[in-house]
Amino acid sequence: MTVLGQQARAAARQMRNASGQTKTQALRAMARLLDTKKEELQAENAKDLIAAEKNGLEPALLDRLRLSDKALATMAAGLRQIADMPDPVGSLTASSTRPNGMRVAQMRVPLGVIGIIYESRPNVTIDAAALCLKSGNATILRGGSEAIHSNVALGTIIGQGLAEAGLPSHAVQVVGTTDRAAVGQLVTLTDYIDVIVPRGGKGLIARLAREAKVPLLKHLDGNCHVYIDSAANLDKAHDITVNAKTYRYGICGTMETLLVHTDIAASILPRLGQTFKEKGVELRGCERTRTLLPQALPATQEDWETEYLAPILAVRIVDTLDEAMDHIARYSSEHTEAIITENLSAATRFQREVDSSSVYVNLPTCFADGFEYGLGAEIGISTNRLHARGPVGLEGLTTLKWVLAGDGQLRG
Amino acid sequence: MTVLGQQARAAARQMRNASGQTKTQALRAMARLLDTKKEELQAENAKDLIAAEKNGLEPALLDRLRLSDKALATMAAGLRQIADMPDPVGSLTASSTRPNGMRVAQMRVPLGVIGIIYESRPNVTIDAAALCLKSGNATILRGGSEAIHSNVALGTIIGQGLAEAGLPSHAVQVVGTTDRAAVGQLVTLTDYIDVIVPRGGKGLIARLAREAKVPLLKHLDGNCHVYIDSAANLDKAHDITVNAKTYRYGICGTMETLLVHTDIAASILPRLGQTFKEKGVELRGCERTRTLLPQALPATQEDWETEYLAPILAVRIVDTLDEAMDHIARYSSEHTEAIITENLSAATRFQREVDSSSVYVNLPTCFADGFEYGLGAEIGISTNRLHARGPVGLEGLTTLKWVLAGDGQLRG
Repeated sequence: MTVLGQQARAAARQMRNASGQTKTQALRAMARLLDTKKEELQAENAKDLIAAEKNGLEPALLDRLRLSDKALATMAAGLRQIADMPDPVGSLTASSTRPNGMRVAQMRVPLGVIGIIYESRPNVTIDAAALCLKSGNATILRGGSEAIHSNVALGTIIGQGLAEAGLPSHAVQVVGTTDRAAVGQLVTLTDYIDVIVPRGGKGLIARLAREAKVPLLKHLDGNCHVYIDSAANLDKAHDITVNAKTYRYGICGTMETLLVHTDIAASILPRLGQTFKEKGVELRGCERTRTLLPQALPATQEDWETEYLAPILAVRIVDTLDEAMDHIARYSSEHTEAIITENLSAATRFQREVDSSSVYVNLPTCFADGFEYGLGAEIGISTNRLHARGPVGLEGLTTLKWVLAGDGQLRG
Repeated sequence: MTVLGQQARAAARQMRNASGQTKTQALRAMARLLDTKKEELQAENAKDLIAAEKNGLEPALLDRLRLSDKALATMAAGLRQIADMPDPVGSLTASSTRPNGMRVAQMRVPLGVIGIIYESRPNVTIDAAALCLKSGNATILRGGSEAIHSNVALGTIIGQGLAEAGLPSHAVQVVGTTDRAAVGQLVTLTDYIDVIVPRGGKGLIARLAREAKVPLLKHLDGNCHVYIDSAANLDKAHDITVNAKTYRYGICGTMETLLVHTDIAASILPRLGQTFKEKGVELRGCERTRTLLPQALPATQEDWETEYLAPILAVRIVDTLDEAMDHIARYSSEHTEAIITENLSAATRFQREVDSSSVYVNLPTCFADGFEYGLGAEIGISTNRLHARGPVGLEGLTTLKWVLAGDGQLRG
């Protein structure tokens, strides 16, 4: 791992100075190679699929592992899309001239070396490498052992793309070992890795957070809330709430607890209860909720704390906006929360005072995604407070350095 | 420490929503109290001074510890200056409207709870508390044991200022114990402290970096370089180099190694040698340097690595701009580096390719300071790559959250 780190650090210095054109060329070459080398890739992928089937991997996970024609075409399209995005490196911001005539500005530059630790999906190998490369970083990719043959084969394609553009071969390195100790080493290589983006289940991320000395760009939980205010429009409240829960059960922006103002509860909850029944969503409610929705099971303390990632929803009736915000402050994982209201003052207070990485007015929490925000793509979502917060795109993979220019001004 | 942390976390929620006006009022009240309570402050300070003298503290350090009339007036002026700065909280950036009509923006918000760990100077108690308060954060201040009576007395003033403005008393807490274990506890309170800014010697910061689980906004070393290019103007090169070394020997932006292009070495080094001799700066040079400056001692590998913080300068002659940048990449602490040149292409390459938190053209490295950059004040200088880099002002004590507003748009 240390050797990989040293090689990445050396490559990062070259990558930092690579032109936008060169990086675009490498990404386009990779997209082309995904198509022309399809058979080789699928042959390597087949080895992973056979092993996974033998190990009894669930069909849904097998499907994610498969490099089908469609999956490869999607990856190639993603590469071309990232290739076409503007180069974030080198732009100047916060430019000013000081009273003594010296010019001060901040220049956007790559972070350096980025580690990506992820589980089974081999498409992450391409997506993450592309975003890190576009932003001028060197990358070390450590995927799941189930996808090792696929990832190494994709690493070869990436290497060929780098070579075609004249970029250093160590700019993207796929860890070729499935040794679990490798992950523990990666997260402590503070001399060689600037930040690690872990993508995977809560178990993996919690373990990394305990062991890491390298900063992690991560979120652990997406315990997201929707609050239906007393001044909500009933139709919007219904549709937003249903969308927030049922767009997809397994994503981090899915609503897990619904808070409803007591004045509107009788008007909205029975209707929502009917829809959630039709959709097969199990409800767990506070006592007052259960008088309006007898179908709901009693909610416990644990329900307020849980990210179900499943067709289950906790529901609680509150007396005031403040009570809703208190509940959120106590239980939220600071990922994404939404208010549904037509009242400007309630909307403004909620958006100012709720301290989560994303705070919405009249929108479902499932919009939490870099592409939806206009970032073009995302490397992940962060609930860290430092550096990037919320969906992280190319900009979150860069940093700012100060650049000053003068003509011999002296201090003192 | 856990109780302090919990109190800070609770206060942070109130501070987040405090108006700019309220924060200004608190800062102005503190400035006034520094004057009206001068006698009490100086009586407490005298206890520290007597103990320090008994313990044989050096005169320079005694001087820093003293809350003289002038020192208190400077602190009050600093408070008023920070009070007058624009409130960084609540401003919106990166605003856009997505194709579906939803509006996306980023809102600047406080980081939350900030820990400050510092050594003897009691003025840090006021300066750091003021910057953290202005940016809407709660603060825990842990100063050196030599200043404990002064710091606790200043903490009382701060508390009175908070009370006058109706802000929570736990918004600023001065740790009242001199127990060294307290520091070790503070840096692991990840549930209650969002970031710690350590200010002090390298020993303290290195120790904290080893123990910390809370992110540190820090720099360890300021091993800063000036490179005199072959196309440098000789007068500017002389004056900038002398200023970079002699403005103050003990600050982190002081030049510690001078790199000189071989083509200009014979024209500039003897003149610089003469000036440094007059100023009492000891030179340590590479072999080629020593043929031009026989007064210079031989430089060893260790000299390239050392931040002297003293009237000592390492000098090395290089053959090319690339050799200078290689030296910097190898030995620099990524704090501040400067090129002196009239050649646009050399200036552009240096500023783009040198990977330090500040990179200058034709300016001395000793300008590395938030006030000089126009930040109004600084909490410290960071050589971290994530979050704030270089001098850190109010903005570095804040973060951005995403705020989205819509009218019932749904996903999918």
